[in-house]
Amino acid sequence: MARKARAIDLPALGTLDRTAGALGRQLAQGLREAIRRGDLQPGEPLPSTRQLAQALQVARGTVVEAFEQLAAEGFLEAIPGAGTQVAPIAAGKAGIPRTMPAPADEKPATGLPSPAAAFARVAQQFNSLPHVPFAISVPLGATMPGTAWRRLGNRLRARGQGAPAGYGDPQGARPLREAISDYVRRSRSVRCDADQVIVTGGTQQGLYLCCQVLLGVGDRAWVENPAYAGITSILEHAGRGGAVRVPVDAEGLDVEAGMRLAPHARAAFVTPSHQYPLGMPLSMTRRNALLEWARKAGAWIVEDDYDSELRYAGHPFPALQGLDTQRVVYLGTFSKILFPSLRLGYLIAPPQLVPAFIGARVLMDRSPPGADQHVLAAFMAEGHLDRHIRRIRGIYAAHRQQLMQTLARLLPPALAWLQPSDQGMHLLLWLNEKLDDNEVAWQAAQAGVAVRPVSPMFAPGSARPGLVLGFGGFSGEQMEEAARKLAAAIRALAGRRGY
Amino acid sequence: MARKARAIDLPALGTLDRTAGALGRQLAQGLREAIRRGDLQPGEPLPSTRQLAQALQVARGTVVEAFEQLAAEGFLEAIPGAGTQVAPIAAGKAGIPRTMPAPADEKPATGLPSPAAAFARVAQQFNSLPHVPFAISVPLGATMPGTAWRRLGNRLRARGQGAPAGYGDPQGARPLREAISDYVRRSRSVRCDADQVIVTGGTQQGLYLCCQVLLGVGDRAWVENPAYAGITSILEHAGRGGAVRVPVDAEGLDVEAGMRLAPHARAAFVTPSHQYPLGMPLSMTRRNALLEWARKAGAWIVEDDYDSELRYAGHPFPALQGLDTQRVVYLGTFSKILFPSLRLGYLIAPPQLVPAFIGARVLMDRSPPGADQHVLAAFMAEGHLDRHIRRIRGIYAAHRQQLMQTLARLLPPALAWLQPSDQGMHLLLWLNEKLDDNEVAWQAAQAGVAVRPVSPMFAPGSARPGLVLGFGGFSGEQMEEAARKLAAAIRALAGRRGY
Repeated sequence: MARKARAIDLPALGTLDRTAGALGRQLAQGLREAIRRGDLQPGEPLPSTRQLAQALQVARGTVVEAFEQLAAEGFLEAIPGAGTQVAPIAAGKAGIPRTMPAPADEKPATGLPSPAAAFARVAQQFNSLPHVPFAISVPLGATMPGTAWRRLGNRLRARGQGAPAGYGDPQGARPLREAISDYVRRSRSVRCDADQVIVTGGTQQGLYLCCQVLLGVGDRAWVENPAYAGITSILEHAGRGGAVRVPVDAEGLDVEAGMRLAPHARAAFVTPSHQYPLGMPLSMTRRNALLEWARKAGAWIVEDDYDSELRYAGHPFPALQGLDTQRVVYLGTFSKILFPSLRLGYLIAPPQLVPAFIGARVLMDRSPPGADQHVLAAFMAEGHLDRHIRRIRGIYAAHRQQLMQTLARLLPPALAWLQPSDQGMHLLLWLNEKLDDNEVAWQAAQAGVAVRPVSPMFAPGSARPGLVLGFGGFSGEQMEEAARKLAAAIRALAGRRGY
Repeated sequence: MARKARAIDLPALGTLDRTAGALGRQLAQGLREAIRRGDLQPGEPLPSTRQLAQALQVARGTVVEAFEQLAAEGFLEAIPGAGTQVAPIAAGKAGIPRTMPAPADEKPATGLPSPAAAFARVAQQFNSLPHVPFAISVPLGATMPGTAWRRLGNRLRARGQGAPAGYGDPQGARPLREAISDYVRRSRSVRCDADQVIVTGGTQQGLYLCCQVLLGVGDRAWVENPAYAGITSILEHAGRGGAVRVPVDAEGLDVEAGMRLAPHARAAFVTPSHQYPLGMPLSMTRRNALLEWARKAGAWIVEDDYDSELRYAGHPFPALQGLDTQRVVYLGTFSKILFPSLRLGYLIAPPQLVPAFIGARVLMDRSPPGADQHVLAAFMAEGHLDRHIRRIRGIYAAHRQQLMQTLARLLPPALAWLQPSDQGMHLLLWLNEKLDDNEVAWQAAQAGVAVRPVSPMFAPGSARPGLVLGFGGFSGEQMEEAARKLAAAIRALAGRRGY
């Protein structure tokens, strides 16, 4: 041996706790720390495994194990014919710092990545409302799917369908896709087969996929004004095209305005059966005009058909997709009619776009989770979903009626009035223009009432004050009490504005 | 009444099926079709509801319902004081076409959107392998989580935790985030608390989120060469920065090469505990050099710590994140050690980047699904995960040993040899340079054996032929038989190449 190992300073290794076992791991940790602290210096020779084992009164194998581990980690290196030494870190350039930075010493890294601030604002904007009236999509009690859902789940899991081996189909489990294509054909006049269905994690993912697949960088898309913040935020932040905001009137999207503003847009994101958040359907005239524009311009229509199951008067409109299966991408979700934390929805694509949607989905998250897809497929196939929808439609109709009457009773029409609507899980309460809906929402929150202001859903410069009120799964008493508090907040603010 | 309604041509309305009920809906459908066919022309006045009800022998309310529905759809319009007429479509410009295009007549839209072709190629590239040896991550039989998982799920669902009302926390359910932060602290020396944990749908979503948050448009990122196709594809197609491929040697990523190639890259995507697909760990020297570069360059390190639970010799390396919690984003997944269709993983972010990651996640799909998060949290808290990992580690070690011996027996080292590795769910079998690994994979597939060629994981021009072989949940007999078939395919191709 050419070099002499100094007698290792045993206290530097810390104390081995012989009752805790894993002595090799303890020793490795002690050596690692000693090197980090600089008690053992780069290039310093170590005693032989035999010597160290004797000194520490452990089996030699324990020391060998620790040395091998630290050699694997690069802390130690074996010199052929000359034992083991502390490795020269960074190829002899810099020595190991005497002290590694302790957690408390670490300073937050400066210079955040360029997209970070915008995404942080998105997180704030989408902050969930508490589960009190008038949050949307909060099924409670009688509006929950009930025990059929749970029993079906237990049964399928017992059969091993809850945790299938291997990666799932990125397009979604076949039985669910079949149940979905059958369901939308029956209930929405959507024309498709199971090969066109892509199971999503809900409408938000569907919108994201549409932006990815339909828009190149810099391509523009029509978006209704006002609109769901989920689509405007994607277009703003996810690095695809930008939004052209197209006004909405009593017949829904103003197609002629869209053609004036951006005749060569590559896509149009629309909510034809129930404009979000205003609630009117897109008229047949406008539907035809929209399709005609899309065909001529070679553009794509994304039909977000949210809440179409919950229509309280007349029949639901047949879907736009049924009028042109080649130009329309249809989006639906089960989150609102079952429960939002289910995170299962669907996208129905023209056949030629299906491979592209699958690819975009694979890049985002490989595939939808397996278990609940099978539960939902069985829930649909056995008729539970139809029954569930019939049941909650009755409940929601009653809630809606009650809320409309309560609000009309509590608030004078010059201060606040309801937007007519026949469908959905929410009402839109317009406010007198002297009121700031953000301020009303903030005051309502102080009183324990959750409402979304509508003005942020408009393009800048076109906003009107109003509130989106969900009448989800709350009891009559809860809604009555919340409506009183909301009315009080509106009246108080109006008083301060000299109304 | 100023205008005279012509007697409506009853056959145009089709036959009402009185046994089927929903006469109003049937009548609406008949009228809609008559207008679409052009049997009823724009501007044409309709008979009164009373007249039509008499003619059809239905209740007047039925006709009123149908008229109201078609008015809502824009097919009919009420003229004050003059009854109802067919609406002039598109504001009097174009008449309704005599025939609507029938499904069979529709031609696929021409001119696909610009990103579609690339995404379609991604879909093909990520095509799942069949569940036969040597597909990766196919837990079967003894390597599945077993009944504890199922029982826990049934119990939690019975308590109502399976389907929580309202939208879930976009960051993930708190109990799961706590279990994860505890788990990574214990097993991987990751320093974090539950507020830094973002529950993902697996590593793929974690990588996608990192690209979104850490890279501005045009920013470049270091990516190992070779690497997992999941990360290179995102950088190619998802509209953020581009990849700079950095070579890998026996110590893992060559940090000095990276600094020569792209000193100002904004991020480095690395697999330090077990380079994918080669298997070597990143040495301590390189770890320190990588962190030093990141700090100086203000760049971010994304540590994909896949398979770190499955180490067969020595202890697992402590995570890079534990050495610098401010510069490292840590990714882990439960998909591989539990089952891939679970789709639950995690991302651990520096505290200051947490809001940005939440925002990016909200835009992609709002939140992770609720139910299985709670099941997993309880599975971890009750110690089942640790037991499961100990159990499968033993099984995988035996499978791995067997596969190594079988391959060494069946194939001469000049034709195929194994890359040394201490960890993970796969082995890398290098092939003689005269062989084309894509061709071998294709031939193996013909014999019912699934292998991934390694050459597509290299940057163009640097590829070497090899095969990634998973030894997941297959039985000894299955693997033995598949290895024979694979060896035969390799030998046959080598024979044709004159070996």
